[in-house]
Amino acid sequence: MRIQILGSAAGGGFPQWNCGCANCHRLRQGTLRGKARTQTQVAVSSDGKAWFLLNASPDLRAQIEAVAELHPRAGLRHSPIAGIVLTSGDLDNVLGLLLLREFQPLRIFATSAIRKIVSQDNSFFRLLERVPGQVTWVDLRPGAAFELNVQGESGPGICCRAVPLPGAYPGYVNEEERGRLAEDQAVLALMLQGQGGKLLFAPALPAVTDQMLALMRDCDVLLVDGTFWSDDELRQARGGGPTSREMGHLPISGPGGSLERLSLRGPRKIYIHVNNTNPMLDEESPQYRSVRAAGWEIAEDGWSFAL
Amino acid sequence: MRIQILGSAAGGGFPQWNCGCANCHRLRQGTLRGKARTQTQVAVSSDGKAWFLLNASPDLRAQIEAVAELHPRAGLRHSPIAGIVLTSGDLDNVLGLLLLREFQPLRIFATSAIRKIVSQDNSFFRLLERVPGQVTWVDLRPGAAFELNVQGESGPGICCRAVPLPGAYPGYVNEEERGRLAEDQAVLALMLQGQGGKLLFAPALPAVTDQMLALMRDCDVLLVDGTFWSDDELRQARGGGPTSREMGHLPISGPGGSLERLSLRGPRKIYIHVNNTNPMLDEESPQYRSVRAAGWEIAEDGWSFAL
Repeated sequence: MRIQILGSAAGGGFPQWNCGCANCHRLRQGTLRGKARTQTQVAVSSDGKAWFLLNASPDLRAQIEAVAELHPRAGLRHSPIAGIVLTSGDLDNVLGLLLLREFQPLRIFATSAIRKIVSQDNSFFRLLERVPGQVTWVDLRPGAAFELNVQGESGPGICCRAVPLPGAYPGYVNEEERGRLAEDQAVLALMLQGQGGKLLFAPALPAVTDQMLALMRDCDVLLVDGTFWSDDELRQARGGGPTSREMGHLPISGPGGSLERLSLRGPRKIYIHVNNTNPMLDEESPQYRSVRAAGWEIAEDGWSFAL
Repeated sequence: MRIQILGSAAGGGFPQWNCGCANCHRLRQGTLRGKARTQTQVAVSSDGKAWFLLNASPDLRAQIEAVAELHPRAGLRHSPIAGIVLTSGDLDNVLGLLLLREFQPLRIFATSAIRKIVSQDNSFFRLLERVPGQVTWVDLRPGAAFELNVQGESGPGICCRAVPLPGAYPGYVNEEERGRLAEDQAVLALMLQGQGGKLLFAPALPAVTDQMLALMRDCDVLLVDGTFWSDDELRQARGGGPTSREMGHLPISGPGGSLERLSLRGPRKIYIHVNNTNPMLDEESPQYRSVRAAGWEIAEDGWSFAL
């Protein structure tokens, strides 16, 4: 299995358009030792030919262009991108679907609830269904395994399993609709198994249960929620707002934080989906050093590796 | 009036993610004498402090980051962007609105029909209305003049007038709804007047009436639809599809094309919204040479000028 990290920041990217926090300000000034990042986007492939996107970021156009493996290969219209797996209906995970609308046949794997709130409640998505066979939504049942294969082809694809997480539906879903949607279909982690090993992708991790910990121990690589360093980070950075936990992101530091809870050895551990306010983006900070000392890596745009 | 061209390509940008046409292929290979372009985006300002976006492109995040004048200046959250004027409901013109959702107070000037099909038929837009005063939609009446000013401030803003064009509503609007919407609210050109002169912005120009020609003669700068070179360009490039005129874009070449119709002298004439298939993107092509010889410029990302 080949894995490409096309983007590694949380929603808004780094720097973020209207943010003057220390990180964003210093990055723009050129005084931060740290790297700009686009919004989180991962692509996986079993054969290096057909690629599957894990979510579809708003930065997808530039992210595709940045990686030669994702460019068209044959004919006037072509893309190596065969499908997309969604882990939630968050705008940062789905807006990129609307950038893939040039009549390219695509499969979108999502829970029926995510399909509903995204494609049925937003007329824009009719543009993905203008010709028969343009986009095929495939129902993804939490807990069930499915194959990431090109439509109509069998082969040693990637086996994927969606692990339901205790998260909430996005802010654009109103209360009435929220009550009608299945709770276990809102936020997922993905367990991906190729011939060479197992990858867990959890860009939003609201909590770490013992069951999740057991799953992680069984993995070769973890790509895990590194959104916020501390629970009150947003409040500190912009003078208000929800806590990290209230937003469905277990913070990295503090009691019960991911640094403490995920002290397991064995898998390669990579934080992804890093918010622009996170102090570990400063590579001269104590937070960066402590994360690295604990054996974690911090994902960067452009990374690629095989499993 | 200051004018920034942040993006100059048609929908999909140049190169386009799934396109293997001669232009895209050669640009990726490094054998085309020509420039990559993001999707059309223009920003204007009367004082260099408050900026107004003409439409909101899907590439807006990177486009804002590329221009220092659009970066936050003071405090933890700030943006010099005060508002957006929409010329149609096309996805390439409105998707960027969803990238501007970090609780920044913004005014969006649009016809009531465009506001309806964009914000009421797409639940995603609730994210722009999470706190009072976040986004204010201002009704824009075709033909009527309005001031581009920061809310609550008076001053020598930019005087803007929306000129209705004979275009259609976007493909995501269904037939039933289409019948209920006013015909003159679908596609607009913008006439912008600052202290130093007049700019016409018409990224989609379905036809040139004598009335439009008179308006243009009165302008200092024209930023005009340069989408397609020829009427059957898309058919040639991908083996099918609508003609340029059917898509609401007067082609550049041929009888009645914009090169012939807009042979006026006086205003500075700039083609913008150039499709990836347009042969004039190749700066060694006869099409490029003939456009330049006729006194036209072809907009590039990063251009800025004063009026």
